Formats: sequence, structure tokens, C-alpha cells
Amino acid sequence: MSPSSPALPLPVPGKAPTRNDVAARAQVSTAVVSYVMTGSKRVTPDKERRVREAMAELGYRPNNTARALRTGKTFVLALLLPDSSNPYFAEIALRIESVAAEQGYGLLIANTHDDPATELRLLREMRSRGADGVILASVFHATWPGDAREIPLVLIDAFHPVDGVPSVGVDAAASTREAVQHLVEVHGCRSVALILGASSDPAGNRDPRQDGWEQALDATGARSGGVAVTSWSREGGITAAHELLAGPDRPDAIFAASDLLGIGVLRAAADLGLRVPQDLAVVSYDGSTESAFSIPRLTTVAQPIGDVARAAVAAVLAPPAGDGHYVSFPGQLLIRESCGCAQPPHRVAS
Amino acid sequence: MSPSSPALPLPVPGKAPTRNDVAARAQVSTAVVSYVMTGSKRVTPDKERRVREAMAELGYRPNNTARALRTGKTFVLALLLPDSSNPYFAEIALRIESVAAEQGYGLLIANTHDDPATELRLLREMRSRGADGVILASVFHATWPGDAREIPLVLIDAFHPVDGVPSVGVDAAASTREAVQHLVEVHGCRSVALILGASSDPAGNRDPRQDGWEQALDATGARSGGVAVTSWSREGGITAAHELLAGPDRPDAIFAASDLLGIGVLRAAADLGLRVPQDLAVVSYDGSTESAFSIPRLTTVAQPIGDVARAAVAAVLAPPAGDGHYVSFPGQLLIRESCGCAQPPHRVAS
Repeated sequence: MSPSSPALPLPVPGKAPTRNDVAARAQVSTAVVSYVMTGSKRVTPDKERRVREAMAELGYRPNNTARALRTGKTFVLALLLPDSSNPYFAEIALRIESVAAEQGYGLLIANTHDDPATELRLLREMRSRGADGVILASVFHATWPGDAREIPLVLIDAFHPVDGVPSVGVDAAASTREAVQHLVEVHGCRSVALILGASSDPAGNRDPRQDGWEQALDATGARSGGVAVTSWSREGGITAAHELLAGPDRPDAIFAASDLLGIGVLRAAADLGLRVPQDLAVVSYDGSTESAFSIPRLTTVAQPIGDVARAAVAAVLAPPAGDGHYVSFPGQLLIRESCGCAQPPHRVAS
Repeated sequence: MSPSSPALPLPVPGKAPTRNDVAARAQVSTAVVSYVMTGSKRVTPDKERRVREAMAELGYRPNNTARALRTGKTFVLALLLPDSSNPYFAEIALRIESVAAEQGYGLLIANTHDDPATELRLLREMRSRGADGVILASVFHATWPGDAREIPLVLIDAFHPVDGVPSVGVDAAASTREAVQHLVEVHGCRSVALILGASSDPAGNRDPRQDGWEQALDATGARSGGVAVTSWSREGGITAAHELLAGPDRPDAIFAASDLLGIGVLRAAADLGLRVPQDLAVVSYDGSTESAFSIPRLTTVAQPIGDVARAAVAAVLAPPAGDGHYVSFPGQLLIRESCGCAQPPHRVAS
């Protein structure tokens, strides 16, 4: 008897199918449906095929609470971010959600506001809510007490391997070096300033973008236009740009460590009557969608958020062997207008 | 004996306190701790005080899984959005998260991608994952089967009352009318175009911003500069602006129904060599942070996202009486530069 025979129970429109519906349609007991779903007991190949076909035809989705009790899993991952409304984090959250969904996992997003106490509270909360793992951007891992690690964890946005926690990062030094060399070698900039966001890192690790910037200055012989440290925001970019551009010997280029900072630099340059790129070349970092639409369009180092999302989800679902496992991906310089390169009008680079 | 006496057990640093720790510190049985937490049985005022003090001193947080089993609640709300990386949605998500956290609820964010099948799957998933309620931006409510409503629901971004579901919205017609009248009455614009995002609304309801725009044209005697319908994105704003600005009788102002569309209009104007606001005045809608930093800064209708977040969380936690309960808040016109108003440089309006 074919499973699509009209004699078999069909789904009631608008009603989520249950395990009973699957059993009736596959002409097996509900216990057999459970065995197939959990793999807890062997059933005949014919029964297994009928159950799987019935599940597919009915669009059956196992009840997650029951599945959770059975498997000890909730099929929920958590993502803890400093600020999910930051476009870079918003875009990586969307990507992680999509990769997690492909694996059958939902994603719980919450904000730490870059505060170690909030982060620790959320880590404990995610564990007590039964999340199967946590992906987070954090610099506070060294301060975590032991119980914070009683759940699979993966750090993203990590510039270095981290003891005891797998982490995923981007080779920010290499891509920053490439971007600054582009400013000097292609556009003839002689003095390149650097804007960094303030770090909350209690270990005081240097931002590798500063290393990349210094390496490029050394390699090209260009001068430092100064370093400004500010908040990670558009507003912070404005403040830092005013600081760097106030002196008599102002730089002719700025590398900003995020697109939000870069947007702030464009805004400040407009207020100061400086033309970008003619009077001031600008390159930023992130490759967020917003950076493709600014005036002028930002040349920026695109973070490989697809690679990061896939590596993070893979590592939290199957924690890699070895202490402090670290994966790093290269960034990609997106050449647009703010560096001085020409781009045909009426077109959108993204 | 004082609860802070050194003879009493102190928390082990780095270890989350348990109900046993609270009981030991309060010198009561663990059952008494449970009675106090759940209010399931009366205990003496002295014991209750000791338990509450011990919980506070130890920073005790009840285990949510146990709490869920006990109360039948999970203290998780879900937020379903068309696209959480859209800055407007990203900002309202942050606000809803914050309001939910004040009430002791975590927030699960997921994306429907404006697709009715994905939305329905997520509604069922949130119910089966045990979320206590769902807040969502959706136009597909009329297509939901009965089981989709078997969880407390609240719609946000609703322009009209919705049968059977409480909803929260903004009076978009009134604030759009005010914005368009500002363009005509203050800046002398004679021909105002309108850019709308394409609606997925199966009921085909008109966007109230179109009503507000028409009312303003009627009230002021200004001409329609045309209507363009496009995707809700920066790219969509570019396409629509090119369409509206291509003809010989181009409008001297554009009202864009979102900040992303407005950013696209600024980008298109720059590519066409039109100065904003001298050659083309622009007003948009949302009041996202991004709109305060564009070149020029966007005059925009700010959505009252704080009010919306509070009303939505209140309504999902205590569903209001009455079928199709609807709350609407006024928008606020933020006057910046793109309409033609002057703003002192070196300052950030936000």
C-alpha cells in the first residue's frame, strides 16, 4: 500500500501534525515513530521508510519539548553580543542564525553591553535555560569563574587563541596592513592616522590593526598621522577625527578600525569642509552594508562573516579537540571611493 | 544571629550559588527556600526574611529549568522580525530586549524574512520551545491557522487594529502629513514625490504614509511628484529615486517611507549631481541612528520605539481584554538638514 494512498490519514489543514498522525499514516505504532526519530531501537527498513515518508508528507516537526526531554538537548544556541544594533554585529547575527537554522538550531540573541557582570549573568542564564551552546564576542574570558564554562562555548571576534575556549577570528593585522599600503602606494598618502575603538580587554592586548598599520608605515616609509582611541560608534569617529584633524600638520589619510568609525570620519570631514578623498583619504573596517552607501562610498576591509558564522556554529556543536583551538580567516579589501579610487556613478558596490 | 555572621556559609567564589547554599546560609531547609521562591506555602516572616537576605547576599538566581517545570513558564519571549539587520528592527529589538529583561524575561530573536511559511514555522517552533509569548512584525496574521495563535501574541508595526490579536503601532499618517507639510510650508517645495517599500500584505491595505502624503498635498496645494514602490532597502531607495528623478519635470522633494530608503535617495542624488537640500529636499521615516550621520543629515520622522517596546512587552505578558486591542503612538519629526533647515556644523543631532 502506497503511503500516498487516500485511505491513509491526511493532515488536517491548519493543525500541526503530531506523532500520532505520523504513526497512523505510516501504519505503525507511535513507539515505532519514536524509535525512528531517536534511533533508540532498530526497526525494519520498510517501517523506517514508511515513517520517514509520513513525516515528510505531513510536514511533521518533532515537539521540541519532548525532544529536549528525550535527547537532553534543546536545539537552541545562544549568541551574546556587546550590541546587536551595531550593524556589523547585526549582520553577523543574521548569518549565524541562518547557519544554525540549517543545522536545526534556533538562536537566542542577547546583549552583554560589553559589561563583564552582564556577560556572566547571561552565560549562567543560557546554561540554566538549557541552551546547547553559546557563541559570544567577549574579552572577559580570563575573568570567568569555572561554572561559566559548564556549557559549550565559542568566542568570535577573537584576535588571538584563548586558553581553554575555542575561538574564531579574522587576521586583522594583515588586512589592515594591506589597506594602509593601498593608501600610500596607490594614492600617494604620506601621513596616515589610525582610529581605534576603546578596548575593554582586561589583559590589555593590543589591537592587531595597530600592528598592521605600523607594519605598513614601516614598509612604505609613510609617516604616522597620529592614533586616536574613542568609543566604537559613529559619534566616536567624529570625536576622533576632530582630534586628529585639528593640528597644523594634519594627516592626509585615516584608517578607521570599524565602518561606524569611518562613517563618523566622513561626517566630521564634511563639517570641517574637507573633501574625501581629495583632502582626506579614508579606509575603514568591517564591510557592513551601510559602508557601501555612504557619501563617498567607503573603501573598507570586509570581514568574512560567512566563514566566521560557519566556523563558530561548527565549533559550538562539535567542540574541537585541543585547548584553545583557534581559526582565523583573512579579511578582504573592498575598493570603493573614499580611498581615492574612482567608481562609476549610478552603481552600487556592495 | 545575624545573616552576615562569618559562621554562616559564604559563597564559593566563581561558583553559582544553589538552593542548598541559600538554605544553609538562611539556616532553613531547602523546602523552606522553595516555599519562599514559589509562594506555594506560608512560612514565618522571620524565615522568609532570612531566605530573602541569603538570596540577595549570595546573588542567588533560581535555576530556570526548575522554575519552568514549577511555574509552567520559561521566562523567554520571542521576537520575530522580517530582518533583524535592518537598523530600525535592530534598534527596536534592543529596546524590547531591555524592557523584557526588566521583567525578568529573556528574548529569543528570529527572522521571518517576510515569508509567511517561515513565520508560521517559527510561531510553531516558539510554542514548542516553550516561549511564554511572541512579539512579531507581520502582515500575514489573516492567513494563520488556528494553532498559530495557541501562544500569547502581540503584533508591532501595525497600522490598523487586527482581529483577534493585540497590536501596537504608530500613527504614520499624521506624522507623514506633518513632514510633507513642513517641506511645502517651510521650504516652499512645490512637487513632493513619495517612495514606499513594497508591501507583502495579502489584504492589500494601503500604507498610511500614502494617506498622510496625500492629505498634505491637498492641504497645501502642492503637486504630487509621483509615487515609486521599491524594496525596503538602501538599494531600493536608489532605484526609486532614479525612477522619480529621470523625467523632465522632476520633483523638488521626496518623502521616503524609511531611513534606509532615504539613505538610498541621498546616494542617488549624489550620483546624479543633485545637491540635497538645494536641488532636492528629502525627508525619511524611522529615526534610526544611521539617519543622524548621513551627508546631509536626514530630517526624519522618529518612531517612538521606547513606547512601542513597553506596550508590546506589557501586552504579551498580560494580554489585554477585548478582541483586536490596538495601541498607537505618535511619531516625532526630527528636523535636521536634508529638508533644507540649517544645522550648525561640528555637532551631532541624534
